[in-house]
Amino acid sequence: MKLAPSILAAATALVVAAPASAQFAKPEEAIKYRQSAMFVMGQHAARIGAMVNGKAPYDPAAAASSAEIIAAISRLPWEGFVAGTDKGGANTRAKPEIWRDSAKFKENSDKLMADAAKLAAAAKTGTLDAIKPAFSATAGNCKSCHDTFRKDQ
Amino acid sequence: MKLAPSILAAATALVVAAPASAQFAKPEEAIKYRQSAMFVMGQHAARIGAMVNGKAPYDPAAAASSAEIIAAISRLPWEGFVAGTDKGGANTRAKPEIWRDSAKFKENSDKLMADAAKLAAAAKTGTLDAIKPAFSATAGNCKSCHDTFRKDQ
Repeated sequence: MKLAPSILAAATALVVAAPASAQFAKPEEAIKYRQSAMFVMGQHAARIGAMVNGKAPYDPAAAASSAEIIAAISRLPWEGFVAGTDKGGANTRAKPEIWRDSAKFKENSDKLMADAAKLAAAAKTGTLDAIKPAFSATAGNCKSCHDTFRKDQ
Repeated sequence: MKLAPSILAAATALVVAAPASAQFAKPEEAIKYRQSAMFVMGQHAARIGAMVNGKAPYDPAAAASSAEIIAAISRLPWEGFVAGTDKGGANTRAKPEIWRDSAKFKENSDKLMADAAKLAAAAKTGTLDAIKPAFSATAGNCKSCHDTFRKDQ
């Protein structure tokens, strides 16, 4: 694939390019955007998790692919957290703490992106032993951030 | 960004790695997966569209970033079209023709991926004149495929 753009670099450029609030026509779109990116990530995390937990056979190519998709998409959700979009009732589980403690939220999202990049690198080695600790760190970030910043269902 | 994985290559590997039906725990997840990927693409297409149509100032970095995200994510939705997931009432607008005429559907999705890659290349040049025809081709693919394979709302 000659063009093979780096979505990591692309998404980074995007975040730098414009304030988040300018990117979405409506608050609901910002909510749906972040939820969509999270859902795609979650699906790929589940695939790797099944391999790590022995519930699915280890497929090196599929694991590496899912890990790269997670690393790439981990850059996207954050601009969807536009100030004020903790409203919307059943439509969002975002807690107001996301904006109240935005430094901690950013710290968590930065850590996820860094750990997801490490997971992608580990998955490329083609060994489950390399994937396990990297997956554990990445999944741990998901959980701790959700525990702090996402309402229970 | 040292790791900078190619999500294009990753997604290609993924598609090759396993049959689509094995990837999702439930049909609803396949539906939500493809819809999530489509939504993220649609948001970035709207951003470029606004620049192309003069409704937003041309921002070369943002346009290039959105185009790369479209090119990358254009690889993802297709595995979500698991056979039988045209059911689900209000949850999906997928027509049964997707599976009845799967060759044409694949032709359309292949064309989108190819044109989105060209759009990403055009956007990298940093001129709106290069983006316009590439965006028009890409958006035309979205529309014609939706016209054929997606139910009206």
